[in-house]
Amino acid sequence: MSMNRSPIPTANDIDAAARRIAGHVRETPIARPGADTFGLAATLTLKLEGLQHTGSFKPRGAFNRVLARPPIPPTGLIAASGGNHGAAVAYVARQLGMHAEIFVPEIVAASKLARLHAYGASVHVGGRAYADALLASEQRAQQSGATQIHAYDDPDVVAGAGTLAREFEAQAGPLDCVLVAVGGGGLIAGVAAWYGSRTRVIAVEPFHSCAMHAALAAGAPCDVEVSGIAADSLGARRVGNIPFAVAQRYISLCVQVEDSDILAAQRALWNELRIFAEPGGATALAALLSGAYVPAAGERVGVVVCGANGDPAVL
Amino acid sequence: MSMNRSPIPTANDIDAAARRIAGHVRETPIARPGADTFGLAATLTLKLEGLQHTGSFKPRGAFNRVLARPPIPPTGLIAASGGNHGAAVAYVARQLGMHAEIFVPEIVAASKLARLHAYGASVHVGGRAYADALLASEQRAQQSGATQIHAYDDPDVVAGAGTLAREFEAQAGPLDCVLVAVGGGGLIAGVAAWYGSRTRVIAVEPFHSCAMHAALAAGAPCDVEVSGIAADSLGARRVGNIPFAVAQRYISLCVQVEDSDILAAQRALWNELRIFAEPGGATALAALLSGAYVPAAGERVGVVVCGANGDPAVL
Repeated sequence: MSMNRSPIPTANDIDAAARRIAGHVRETPIARPGADTFGLAATLTLKLEGLQHTGSFKPRGAFNRVLARPPIPPTGLIAASGGNHGAAVAYVARQLGMHAEIFVPEIVAASKLARLHAYGASVHVGGRAYADALLASEQRAQQSGATQIHAYDDPDVVAGAGTLAREFEAQAGPLDCVLVAVGGGGLIAGVAAWYGSRTRVIAVEPFHSCAMHAALAAGAPCDVEVSGIAADSLGARRVGNIPFAVAQRYISLCVQVEDSDILAAQRALWNELRIFAEPGGATALAALLSGAYVPAAGERVGVVVCGANGDPAVL
Repeated sequence: MSMNRSPIPTANDIDAAARRIAGHVRETPIARPGADTFGLAATLTLKLEGLQHTGSFKPRGAFNRVLARPPIPPTGLIAASGGNHGAAVAYVARQLGMHAEIFVPEIVAASKLARLHAYGASVHVGGRAYADALLASEQRAQQSGATQIHAYDDPDVVAGAGTLAREFEAQAGPLDCVLVAVGGGGLIAGVAAWYGSRTRVIAVEPFHSCAMHAALAAGAPCDVEVSGIAADSLGARRVGNIPFAVAQRYISLCVQVEDSDILAAQRALWNELRIFAEPGGATALAALLSGAYVPAAGERVGVVVCGANGDPAVL
């Protein structure tokens, strides 16, 4: 971004991102399970972003970053990731004819690693968590000169993620609130930047990786310990500065769920809708099913099912 | 149906069915995978009917039959099924406060049996194939007086299935052809009755259960041997009289696929879209991916993914 641009994407930025990435990403479907399905008094609309290329929302931001800020050097793209962002960067590179080098921690899910190899990226597995992979990728980028695509703390990555909300609103109409899982905060920042004050955007985090909760409590991004079943997608040690700026302005509530709630939400999605979500992808719904967020009767609730790169054996 | 009504549902019949079952069934989403996804020159739109209540299209027909022709006696509903129709009848009964007794063959998939029990039906497992379960259910219906809901050879069941095509056309716009898997033929009959001559409707059957192919070749429904991985959903020994009448008038082509093609289509749906389909649910797509049906460049192809009650372990 230029220095005189606010770190918070505007609706115009997100419109521009949507035009830029059109044809590269899928318009993913929504589903309305119906009143009986989960025993909720609210009207539920799910955004099924697991059907996106690479199995998560991440290509929206990665395509937008690469297309918005050329040129990309011959050494290509480099990224650190729990897995989903890396798969997206690898996919973007393959589609646009670039090289990609991806750093993932040891907790990377097998299905994410398989995607990285399938898309032809150079893959480095190492370190306990995302933050370790990020450090390794930054050191490597200084050597290679490749363009680092940050997983969430980049205005074009955030604006790209915002296209999900733009699309969701066009499909679902007005919603009273939208629940979004938070890792580093890139997705929720894009969603909240799009909806602004029209729709309450609610952050959902596992108790075991709650970087946004900690940041909002502390008044600034700060380090937290990360663990649990969703750590391979939500396990950022701290939220990004851009996501935090958006959160301070626009995020109305931040709730937390247990790993058991996440697993229950995965199973409920499968049993009731035959939709598979990875743990991070089921985390937003877990807030609703566990009662961490209790909607009012008739409330129009949107839930982003943001990823599906997990192991169906848990079902 | 009254005796002076053609066995082929009209658009008005399907409109009436859609009004009748509205609120009882879900509007299921469509997905457009995009040109690169399966290496096809055609434009592909998938109807994701595995997200329907009970995991298949079957509640459309079952609700319509029950709501269109009351009263239902206190002994309730009875049905024979490879599993999906039975689960739908059990679900309809539970939702409407009726009793259901369901007959399934020994090849019933574990996930379908689990649904039957979850919905509170009385379940009888016996016989090698659907036809055996049908015979047992007919004998039982004569004793009990319960209302038999045929899985496919009933005008209201077919009209209910036709609501899938009505919804698909409203969502996807004009299509040049729609591929539909065939067992007893109820779904394709409803789809072809809706589209008439506007859109070519293409039947897809496994080589190992090809009752429609045999019927069209013989000029009348006739018995075939059934086996293979999709037999628990497509394993009708012969097509129904109503589906055959529709097929003779409206079905433009009938193609066949191997079990290995079906498995490959299941895996492709999972890998590319994180959509799970049971073997019968992936059979229509298998025709496209295997080359059993080769669309023209730019052809607008619809594919019905009609069920998702299978074992994700095959992935």
